[in-house]
Amino acid sequence: MKRFLPTPHLLSPLAGPIALNLPKVAAPRVSWFSVPVRRFTAFAPSAPRTYAYAKFPTKKKYKMTTTATTLKGEPLDKAALESMLRRRMFYTPSFEVYGGVSGLYDYGPPGCALQANIIDLWRKHFILEEDMLEVDCTVLTPHDVLKTSGHVDKFADWMCKDPKNGEILRADHFVEDVLEARLKADKEARGQKVEEKEEDPKKKKKKSKGLEAVKLDDAVVKEYEEVLAQIDNYNGEQLGELIKKYDLRNPATGEQPSPPVAFNLMFQTSIGPSSNLPGYLRPETAQGQFLNFAKLLEFNTGQMPFASASIGKSYRNEISPRAGLLRVREFLMAEIEHFVDPEGHKKHHRFHEVEDIELELLDRHTQLSGQTKTKRVSIGQAVRDGTVDNETLGYFLARIHLFLKKIGIDQTKIRFRQHMANEMAHYACDCWDAELLTSYGWVECVGCADRSAYDLSVHAKKTGAPLIVRQRLDEPKTIEEWEVEIDKKKFGPFFKKDGKTIEAAILATTQEERGQLAKEMEANGKVIINVPGVGDGKVEVSKDLLAIKWQKRVEYIREYTPNVIEPSFGIGRILYALIEHNYWTRASEGGDEARGVLSFPPAVAPTKVLIVPLSSNKDFTPVVRKLSQMLRSAGVSSRVDDSSASIGKRYSRNDELGTPFGVTVDFQTLKDGTVTLRERDSTRQVRAEEDKIIEAIRALVEGTKTWQDIESELPLFEGQEVDITVR
Amino acid sequence: MKRFLPTPHLLSPLAGPIALNLPKVAAPRVSWFSVPVRRFTAFAPSAPRTYAYAKFPTKKKYKMTTTATTLKGEPLDKAALESMLRRRMFYTPSFEVYGGVSGLYDYGPPGCALQANIIDLWRKHFILEEDMLEVDCTVLTPHDVLKTSGHVDKFADWMCKDPKNGEILRADHFVEDVLEARLKADKEARGQKVEEKEEDPKKKKKKSKGLEAVKLDDAVVKEYEEVLAQIDNYNGEQLGELIKKYDLRNPATGEQPSPPVAFNLMFQTSIGPSSNLPGYLRPETAQGQFLNFAKLLEFNTGQMPFASASIGKSYRNEISPRAGLLRVREFLMAEIEHFVDPEGHKKHHRFHEVEDIELELLDRHTQLSGQTKTKRVSIGQAVRDGTVDNETLGYFLARIHLFLKKIGIDQTKIRFRQHMANEMAHYACDCWDAELLTSYGWVECVGCADRSAYDLSVHAKKTGAPLIVRQRLDEPKTIEEWEVEIDKKKFGPFFKKDGKTIEAAILATTQEERGQLAKEMEANGKVIINVPGVGDGKVEVSKDLLAIKWQKRVEYIREYTPNVIEPSFGIGRILYALIEHNYWTRASEGGDEARGVLSFPPAVAPTKVLIVPLSSNKDFTPVVRKLSQMLRSAGVSSRVDDSSASIGKRYSRNDELGTPFGVTVDFQTLKDGTVTLRERDSTRQVRAEEDKIIEAIRALVEGTKTWQDIESELPLFEGQEVDITVR
Repeated sequence: MKRFLPTPHLLSPLAGPIALNLPKVAAPRVSWFSVPVRRFTAFAPSAPRTYAYAKFPTKKKYKMTTTATTLKGEPLDKAALESMLRRRMFYTPSFEVYGGVSGLYDYGPPGCALQANIIDLWRKHFILEEDMLEVDCTVLTPHDVLKTSGHVDKFADWMCKDPKNGEILRADHFVEDVLEARLKADKEARGQKVEEKEEDPKKKKKKSKGLEAVKLDDAVVKEYEEVLAQIDNYNGEQLGELIKKYDLRNPATGEQPSPPVAFNLMFQTSIGPSSNLPGYLRPETAQGQFLNFAKLLEFNTGQMPFASASIGKSYRNEISPRAGLLRVREFLMAEIEHFVDPEGHKKHHRFHEVEDIELELLDRHTQLSGQTKTKRVSIGQAVRDGTVDNETLGYFLARIHLFLKKIGIDQTKIRFRQHMANEMAHYACDCWDAELLTSYGWVECVGCADRSAYDLSVHAKKTGAPLIVRQRLDEPKTIEEWEVEIDKKKFGPFFKKDGKTIEAAILATTQEERGQLAKEMEANGKVIINVPGVGDGKVEVSKDLLAIKWQKRVEYIREYTPNVIEPSFGIGRILYALIEHNYWTRASEGGDEARGVLSFPPAVAPTKVLIVPLSSNKDFTPVVRKLSQMLRSAGVSSRVDDSSASIGKRYSRNDELGTPFGVTVDFQTLKDGTVTLRERDSTRQVRAEEDKIIEAIRALVEGTKTWQDIESELPLFEGQEVDITVR
Repeated sequence: MKRFLPTPHLLSPLAGPIALNLPKVAAPRVSWFSVPVRRFTAFAPSAPRTYAYAKFPTKKKYKMTTTATTLKGEPLDKAALESMLRRRMFYTPSFEVYGGVSGLYDYGPPGCALQANIIDLWRKHFILEEDMLEVDCTVLTPHDVLKTSGHVDKFADWMCKDPKNGEILRADHFVEDVLEARLKADKEARGQKVEEKEEDPKKKKKKSKGLEAVKLDDAVVKEYEEVLAQIDNYNGEQLGELIKKYDLRNPATGEQPSPPVAFNLMFQTSIGPSSNLPGYLRPETAQGQFLNFAKLLEFNTGQMPFASASIGKSYRNEISPRAGLLRVREFLMAEIEHFVDPEGHKKHHRFHEVEDIELELLDRHTQLSGQTKTKRVSIGQAVRDGTVDNETLGYFLARIHLFLKKIGIDQTKIRFRQHMANEMAHYACDCWDAELLTSYGWVECVGCADRSAYDLSVHAKKTGAPLIVRQRLDEPKTIEEWEVEIDKKKFGPFFKKDGKTIEAAILATTQEERGQLAKEMEANGKVIINVPGVGDGKVEVSKDLLAIKWQKRVEYIREYTPNVIEPSFGIGRILYALIEHNYWTRASEGGDEARGVLSFPPAVAPTKVLIVPLSSNKDFTPVVRKLSQMLRSAGVSSRVDDSSASIGKRYSRNDELGTPFGVTVDFQTLKDGTVTLRERDSTRQVRAEEDKIIEAIRALVEGTKTWQDIESELPLFEGQEVDITVR
């Protein structure tokens, strides 16, 4: 189900148990969050494969395609990873000492630094590289703006209420949960193996109450599976019909919930002391950029094309948030609005730089045929053969790919999925999502849509602001045509209350009609105008009130509303996928349980260097301080761990934090000024003078050298790293 | 008036026309924004000088001390500056095409980059330099948290309403405005010169309606002046009395407004689909840090002291925001919470590094004596003589000073003002504001408070969470005392419903009482406990239910709640002051009006380098592209201006944007690969090969070389810069 109601995307000709007569109503905006996760349903393997989109897929449904693994290709133990992330305070439920609030998370120091580094690279990769105009607009947004954009009316999910305990349920999730429980009960009755759905234990317990082994008719099973396969295509009324038809009841109470009603997902508030200025927390950062278009164009000295960009928090009041960082109520977005002339096929002057880059594309034709196999194709080829609509869109797809690669996303876990024709808003030309494979399945992390002129047009229409480009024409354009001239001074007083209506009717005439009227005027000194609703619908207008002339004029300026290509990044989702993609475990030397490692590239690693004095010996202090200072001067972030834990433990802790390099200060250092440098992934070490080590670190962090380079340049150090304490 | 009601700070023994009987009620939190601007009132020059604090002082009141100037010491033309900031899109009213919303501003590209650079330096100066633990907590905050912190009850201003037109007025502003208008009318009647108050023309026009030259009694003038001098000390009831006593009427309607009521300044919303979880947008970033204390301590491997830090948006629903960026409804804060053991005089291990730094201090004794003259004193001296309470607080004051200096704040326009005893919350030990002098007067931009253990204590008490430090004692502590042991198995069943009450009464006994009870038990085999409310208030407890023993125990752990030192930065205010402090104008060569320059230090300048091709000649394109790439590799942000404007115009535009360096590509470049480098402030230029110029820029931006160094190293270029077009 989309965030914008109604939901006009019936994706396959599959005949559902309830007919889906979804009108092709304009969905005013489909942003990156609206179809967050692609889901593949495997209920009816012998039937033609069907597909649907879910807000939150469970692992079970991804069985066919899920290959979420550690960096080393081993199965990912999500529980172990999550426990580690919690222990190392990457993120933590907000307000936990007050019992927490679902869908809200705080980032602890490593999560916060990781996020800041991703943003920093994003800024360099997009804003600086492309001279984009960054803006920082307010989160508080008055009602009128979001009314015009369509969010007030359509940015909603369906919810229903349990009449007994008042529990509020997201309608599509509810239908899904109950039908799945019945199918599960059926499987148990048939003696088939039932896979456990991953969920929090509290919920499972509650649900299992209603779960007795009950066999269903084969036809019913098929019907349920078909409903589930297209659960996201039903609107509220249809979900209500499903609830009635199958007598779906809340396991907690045994009651049928109320008919679904639309629940707007924006947080509402009131701006100022009187309550007459209702406002919302923005659900995306885009609107502020659109509203500033005219000023940004002027700032850019009128030159087109150009892009604005914004990094900031957005808010969506989820009915029942789940899936950790993937579906939250407050989240960081980075959005680009690239404004381009709709004429000239949206060419991009730097497209040649990226055209050979190959992407894994899952186009809409493939999806329509029920396939999920991606094609590896160069973006140049994809634009040439029309798979991707235009160069600018293609350019950004390639740039998104390069960005994800740069920050350390696993290249084998990125694909670009095209939106289906009926999944997009009516005004959009083309839309692709960058999806990353995680243990939650394929997760939409970046959306990239060609939004045509929609946004600027609706705001301009509402406010009268000229959100347009005035382009000086290279060659002035001469236009000859019939023009009407009304003598307003006489016209109004003559026709009195009907004046406006008659004037509008005259102005609405076509060139052909005007030619005819001109002849009539020439001949009779008056014309008869058709004005429905005034008198008998025919109005006589004399030549002293109206002139119709064949006029020539020269236009030097062309006015147009730019089109918008919008790459939109969900930073929290990218961050989570990045963690999964860089996680692996290695056996500890002590032989106890495997230890986690996060192999972040140095550029995004929360801390670049750990400085470890061998012991708490005071002689080490000045050396440690000097090293910190040298690293700071080199622009490299470091932390000192002078705790009493063994060196091995301290390094192990930092492997979990993803710190790529470690410097040990020992008694040898006090003698000859050498320190050791340890590389996180190999745990190999070199030893050299402080300044050589600092220079090596700088080169490693800036990416100008690899660890192999360093090993070939500096002497290897073979001392053991684990459990060295004081000699 | 403070943000926390009631307002317990009557600052002088001045006998006001309405007695101020303000109880010393606990103001639970006075944050940096609460007393934003120090105001000096000059109404009664012959009377002893009085003072008061205002949210928004007008220029007029600063007459005595205002020396807001340009960087070159000339009078600051605020209108010209504001027009330039608007033209260059540093910031702009949000939603302007929809008519705007007061108190909300968007940052355009230069403002956004300036803000990002300030934040970047802040992060390096504080977080990285001091190994602080940065966290990113949510803005959405549930009701309970802000109830405990005191914001729900006390974070408010007084407002009243016009009964006729419904206009909502901030009560203190209203009283101030009307009395000032009367004093002005009186002055006019006396034929004295009236200074214009700077305000928006609309308002002035409205107000001038009521302004006829009316002479007042001398006694009345004195009374009004006394009221105005302490306008911030009145609570709502007292403001209401003033309105009645002086028959103050809204000039727009001629009506007396309703009695003032408290208006909570937090934006309220509702979290989740049911309305049973009310929440607010946080008014400060501090609470999230306090709530995560236990996890942060663990992350820091239990070591004290440590600091957390947070950079993020906060929200305050101002009744009637004015003063541009200085009082807004959505703003960026950077806050540090430094947690320190209250024992040991809050020493700081790096205090010696800063103790010689001299600050301009305005301590509370000076203020009490009616003076405003600051003392220049080293922070070491200030802590030694007790002016500043402790080393940790002093350390941060010095670090704040260094930070402000680093980003380019004028050193002659910083002072540190101590809060008066009754201006602080009851639990605070000491509090200093870094105030910056602007055309709005002295503006509080950073607060630095010692908040004692208040915040952690209230949250711990409310939630039961152990927001404490458990410190292993170097020397175990032996304690001998009377302990009571209740046999719970028998005690409960014996006393039934009264059990809990009786148990509490036993546990509440003092050591002395226990000694007495032990003797009694020894003698009688039972004791009589006073338990008010149970039976006749005397309860007999026998020795099989209760034992009272003299016990010895050894404690290895000390538990304590840390104290918090909180430096809190208003980034928008600092940004605005930074702009004013770096603004100046220079005569243009053409002789037309003076042109603005913003002499930002390279480190904060929105863009470091402007690349200017002499003309649109295509041969320049590859050179320009290469230079951009070289600068990017050197980590220096640049922009290309290849518009058709003259070189002089292009540089002039960038002087207004504060771009410190310019590189010109001309026909000579195509011959010998040399380019010119221009310095913004002197407009002098050198010429050399591309790589030498890039290296020079890198050194200038990193601050390792000055422009003088560069001039001594590279040949000066004497070509004129203005109005060179194509040769």
